[in-house]
Amino acid sequence: MFNFGNFLTLSTFGESHGIAFGGIINNFPAGLEIDFEAVQYQLDRRKPGQSAIVTQRKESDTVKFLSGIFEGKTTGTPIGFLIENENQKSKDYDHISTAYRPSHADFTYDQKFGIRDYRGGGKSSARETVNWVVAGSLAKQLLPKKVEITAYVSSVGDIFCEKPYQELDFSKIDSNNVRCPDSATAEKMISKIKEIKKEGNTIGGTITCVIKNLPAGIGEPVFGKLQAELAKAMLSINAAKGFEYGSGFCGATMTGKDHNDLFNENFTTQTNLSGGVQGGISNGMDVYFRVAFKPVATILRPQKSVDKDGNSIIVEGKGRHDPCVLPRAVPIVESLASFVLADLFLINRMRRI
Amino acid sequence: MFNFGNFLTLSTFGESHGIAFGGIINNFPAGLEIDFEAVQYQLDRRKPGQSAIVTQRKESDTVKFLSGIFEGKTTGTPIGFLIENENQKSKDYDHISTAYRPSHADFTYDQKFGIRDYRGGGKSSARETVNWVVAGSLAKQLLPKKVEITAYVSSVGDIFCEKPYQELDFSKIDSNNVRCPDSATAEKMISKIKEIKKEGNTIGGTITCVIKNLPAGIGEPVFGKLQAELAKAMLSINAAKGFEYGSGFCGATMTGKDHNDLFNENFTTQTNLSGGVQGGISNGMDVYFRVAFKPVATILRPQKSVDKDGNSIIVEGKGRHDPCVLPRAVPIVESLASFVLADLFLINRMRRI
Amino acid sequence: MFNFGNFLTLSTFGESHGIAFGGIINNFPAGLEIDFEAVQYQLDRRKPGQSAIVTQRKESDTVKFLSGIFEGKTTGTPIGFLIENENQKSKDYDHISTAYRPSHADFTYDQKFGIRDYRGGGKSSARETVNWVVAGSLAKQLLPKKVEITAYVSSVGDIFCEKPYQELDFSKIDSNNVRCPDSATAEKMISKIKEIKKEGNTIGGTITCVIKNLPAGIGEPVFGKLQAELAKAMLSINAAKGFEYGSGFCGATMTGKDHNDLFNENFTTQTNLSGGVQGGISNGMDVYFRVAFKPVATILRPQKSVDKDGNSIIVEGKGRHDPCVLPRAVPIVESLASFVLADLFLINRMRRI
Amino acid sequence: MFNFGNFLTLSTFGESHGIAFGGIINNFPAGLEIDFEAVQYQLDRRKPGQSAIVTQRKESDTVKFLSGIFEGKTTGTPIGFLIENENQKSKDYDHISTAYRPSHADFTYDQKFGIRDYRGGGKSSARETVNWVVAGSLAKQLLPKKVEITAYVSSVGDIFCEKPYQELDFSKIDSNNVRCPDSATAEKMISKIKEIKKEGNTIGGTITCVIKNLPAGIGEPVFGKLQAELAKAMLSINAAKGFEYGSGFCGATMTGKDHNDLFNENFTTQTNLSGGVQGGISNGMDVYFRVAFKPVATILRPQKSVDKDGNSIIVEGKGRHDPCVLPRAVPIVESLASFVLADLFLINRMRRI
Repeated sequence: MFNFGNFLTLSTFGESHGIAFGGIINNFPAGLEIDFEAVQYQLDRRKPGQSAIVTQRKESDTVKFLSGIFEGKTTGTPIGFLIENENQKSKDYDHISTAYRPSHADFTYDQKFGIRDYRGGGKSSARETVNWVVAGSLAKQLLPKKVEITAYVSSVGDIFCEKPYQELDFSKIDSNNVRCPDSATAEKMISKIKEIKKEGNTIGGTITCVIKNLPAGIGEPVFGKLQAELAKAMLSINAAKGFEYGSGFCGATMTGKDHNDLFNENFTTQTNLSGGVQGGISNGMDVYFRVAFKPVATILRPQKSVDKDGNSIIVEGKGRHDPCVLPRAVPIVESLASFVLADLFLINRMRRI
Repeated sequence: MFNFGNFLTLSTFGESHGIAFGGIINNFPAGLEIDFEAVQYQLDRRKPGQSAIVTQRKESDTVKFLSGIFEGKTTGTPIGFLIENENQKSKDYDHISTAYRPSHADFTYDQKFGIRDYRGGGKSSARETVNWVVAGSLAKQLLPKKVEITAYVSSVGDIFCEKPYQELDFSKIDSNNVRCPDSATAEKMISKIKEIKKEGNTIGGTITCVIKNLPAGIGEPVFGKLQAELAKAMLSINAAKGFEYGSGFCGATMTGKDHNDLFNENFTTQTNLSGGVQGGISNGMDVYFRVAFKPVATILRPQKSVDKDGNSIIVEGKGRHDPCVLPRAVPIVESLASFVLADLFLINRMRRI
Repeated sequence: MFNFGNFLTLSTFGESHGIAFGGIINNFPAGLEIDFEAVQYQLDRRKPGQSAIVTQRKESDTVKFLSGIFEGKTTGTPIGFLIENENQKSKDYDHISTAYRPSHADFTYDQKFGIRDYRGGGKSSARETVNWVVAGSLAKQLLPKKVEITAYVSSVGDIFCEKPYQELDFSKIDSNNVRCPDSATAEKMISKIKEIKKEGNTIGGTITCVIKNLPAGIGEPVFGKLQAELAKAMLSINAAKGFEYGSGFCGATMTGKDHNDLFNENFTTQTNLSGGVQGGISNGMDVYFRVAFKPVATILRPQKSVDKDGNSIIVEGKGRHDPCVLPRAVPIVESLASFVLADLFLINRMRRI
Repeated sequence: MFNFGNFLTLSTFGESHGIAFGGIINNFPAGLEIDFEAVQYQLDRRKPGQSAIVTQRKESDTVKFLSGIFEGKTTGTPIGFLIENENQKSKDYDHISTAYRPSHADFTYDQKFGIRDYRGGGKSSARETVNWVVAGSLAKQLLPKKVEITAYVSSVGDIFCEKPYQELDFSKIDSNNVRCPDSATAEKMISKIKEIKKEGNTIGGTITCVIKNLPAGIGEPVFGKLQAELAKAMLSINAAKGFEYGSGFCGATMTGKDHNDLFNENFTTQTNLSGGVQGGISNGMDVYFRVAFKPVATILRPQKSVDKDGNSIIVEGKGRHDPCVLPRAVPIVESLASFVLADLFLINRMRRI
């Protein structure tokens, strides 16, 4: 229980300042030749220290596969993997052991469990997502080659990439540090993040993800709807505050006459406000969705807070933190979407006699 | 697989024009004296024909409990229930058996399954939600009495209830047909829906849901985050297009300094942009979220479409349909939220030795 | 949780003297033309009143499918079904409401739940198995036609069918009331049961089940081993006390040299002490197993017992009870085995890229 | 899917000659002070090389906990652990890469997956059980201290420990290498195993497990019956061929009059043929069961076999193998039983309001 996925499942473990993160992928089909570079590529896009606008912490984030792969191919048995924490021992965290940092999970973990590993946020650290990137990058390789899953930063604070995704050149996403394919917008975003960083502040934003060439038929009719599985995955990301797909919240302002996607004779649709999903099942059009991220809670400024006894204290983030998680969250969104799709893809093999 | 819930689970069945809907709730604790009227109350708020702005179809929507309840109390064994379809035989659906209605699931079901019950949308009909209301209304009774789960219509088309939920009098929600607690806004919404209905058109909107007095500690740290479970539940509703909680998409435009919720000395927070959840776990503040609904796809106007062979056809909704699902979706949102919470509540009993 | 099956899942409900039994099968593939007579055939083999050596209670045990089947074919959506209790109202059970019958579940249900439906054993009644026969009979139809799943009574008390299954003519199983294919043994068994019945006593026995023509590759390597899934299923039957497959307990007395099944050049094996399974996965040879059933706990003789307050009482079964469940358990064993196999069969479709 | 457990779950990975074995335990309650020595104690009882009658292979089998434990206490978050393989690199396995060893899983893995790690049996190796011992030893610590779970070797080949378990002194179990508490029988067993070993042969046997002081109420009424969960667990052990509890197969020869366990006024029963379980739920009496193990398939003698192309070959086990797995299986049986009970124990907390 509380694994990720339905048939293809991921269990994970790890705390920010523990020995290692890692996971187990169950029910991965046999016979896939793994592209290890593709996995490392996504890990590198997620890792700290990759550019001036993300945390300067250093982790090599190399994954070690411990089982389930033999002579480069999956064997169908559980895939165990490990990412060692290299940077976990240097700090003394005693001073925060009893502090409740604003908008962090210190208080809620204590309320729930009565105990927590407070070093670097422990289990609540977003470093957990390193596991998801490994699993998602493997899962991606299960999908038909033609399926493209592409995420990009579509807003930072109040700077929005105004162009619809159809007008963007996705090959430009990694051409800048913020991972927005529109260069002009990207520049503004980067300036904004630098400015925010200078203030010791942080900023939120949104990521848009587009899935192209997904065959029709993926997703389940009642409790495994494609959009519900995606929403659950995305809202599992530490800073995520919202999810919308297709017309999303904007669609809520429309009328049926304007919102309905009329069919062409080849079963494509003239518009795609549905976001590629009808009745929980993909229809062959692009699936696209948007995820909202709050600003990182750790700011490098003094904030009033309380300790576990309710005493007033001052907390102040120190050292190396992300002023904006968006650039690093791009591969996380892609990875989770990949895992959701691979799981539903496999399941779809069993849905007809 | 593909049940609803983790420990407390719901399996359901039923098609729009089949014999009955129904479900089985597993692992419901023993010894609860069921308030059957509370269940019927929510069913009545969901049922068709209840007011001038919803479909005029007639269904009594009475639930029959078949097991798991003895002398008015739950026995801890599976609760089976049934809601018979009363209105299912009158229509001849042959004319739509091969039609693909725009923004309906006709095409995707055919793509996935190669067969479908086309009568009234079959399994893709939102009549499925009648099961959820039964299950959610029972689940609600598992929660501490003080926990209040209240949903209301916060927008219809471009008419928004501008007041924050804190300023609204929730006792007014059912005082009007649209279920918006602000009377002035409600009137505008009702007029809008009537106008839209006259045009044979439909309209979308949003529902806001507020959970008060939820104890801290509910929700799981990694893959069972409270917000992720709620998002999955809400995106399972047939017309839902988006979900946000706390500051939501708006929070994505903010900075950390402004977004962080500072603690008071009693561990409440001065603001609640977190939406009552930190690290996936409730913190004792109000949990609130918003769900976007697209306009109903069935409009009473001719639309160009195709049949399953790709031939151009005209489809036109006839008879009794909802111009706006929002008023009837209010109890659905409440019920799903109740089920999610009851499930996580029970699970929380096992999280400490 | 606590459904039956992994991917193909069955949820059930019902109490002995409730309104109905029923269930929901999830993830049944679309497009199967259902042989309803095959389902009823197995129900008839399980039903009470079918012969002189089983309970004389009368139930027509006809199943009503409520969803998931359209124009005779499965649609891929949940299959809901119902078997109404016809015989549930006649009796007054007040006198046993506080009695704890020996070797029944009255006491344990009270200990666990603090409440129970005491009428006819309530949820602990083996009438639950009617659901399993429906589900298993449908599941059987998912398997390749050549797969034969045959159970028979291999012992009643100390009367054993001495011949190995290979020497038996399975077409004779239903030629007698006890469902033992060896006529001479069957006669002895029947006499034994009649004699036991006359004494108001009951008797146990074993059922052997043989699965022929199962392709190699079915079953999972670690926690979904074919034998483990079968064992779990069989030990879920109300009176089951043991399970062994292949050489079973007898194999525990052997040496490796004698026990190993040597391969022929076509990959069949010269012996089959493995019981058709190696490493949890079928090898193409016959899968066979044996299930032990205790004697029915309800005997028509006075027994000393206690009530819920610990007072000494006398209980005495009255009316119509099975002197021996074995004949009626044959279709139950076949049905559960069918469901296990269909589930693992579907899953096997996903185990290679 | 295909994890072990229902609420408390274990995922595992590892191959015989891979880098490491390991696992993740989900939903372990917070706040338990771990007795690490108790874990290592059971690992030592399972490990190779511990006595003259088991394999002489050397592995230290020390477990490394990677997460979920902080300052010696569980935190409620996933527990990741690792057992490194120390002995995996020395051998050249090329000669068996295409061989199908009799009664091993080489053939079935190939049939299922089309690929396998053939070194030392790969995933089908019983070394997987090292994971189960870790998890079970932790799970044991969740149970009330008074619950005693004790397994012992009750037969080796045709040498049976004739005394009922009630007459045995469990403190003697580890006083001899075979783990049979009756010294005279133990000596015979040890001689038998030594003799068998000299012949390069192997031998099977049975293990009896007794659970004392288990409170009433543990186990679920329909698909999570205590005996079914235990049966599934035990039949997951690599060489297990059968499971019986209480009167077991012997009970199948009895009559109801003799088999029924009459209640005493304090709700204990005069006899315990039920094996401590009625209706799937513990009744407070001893739970006891017996597991049959086949002889190890690897024998140090030439056997005729085939390779993957169906060519006739000779295979011959070499080096260090167990002549009898029974002594090392004792802690495995205890560990799996512990995990099953801890899982059902936690779940039982949620079964009443």
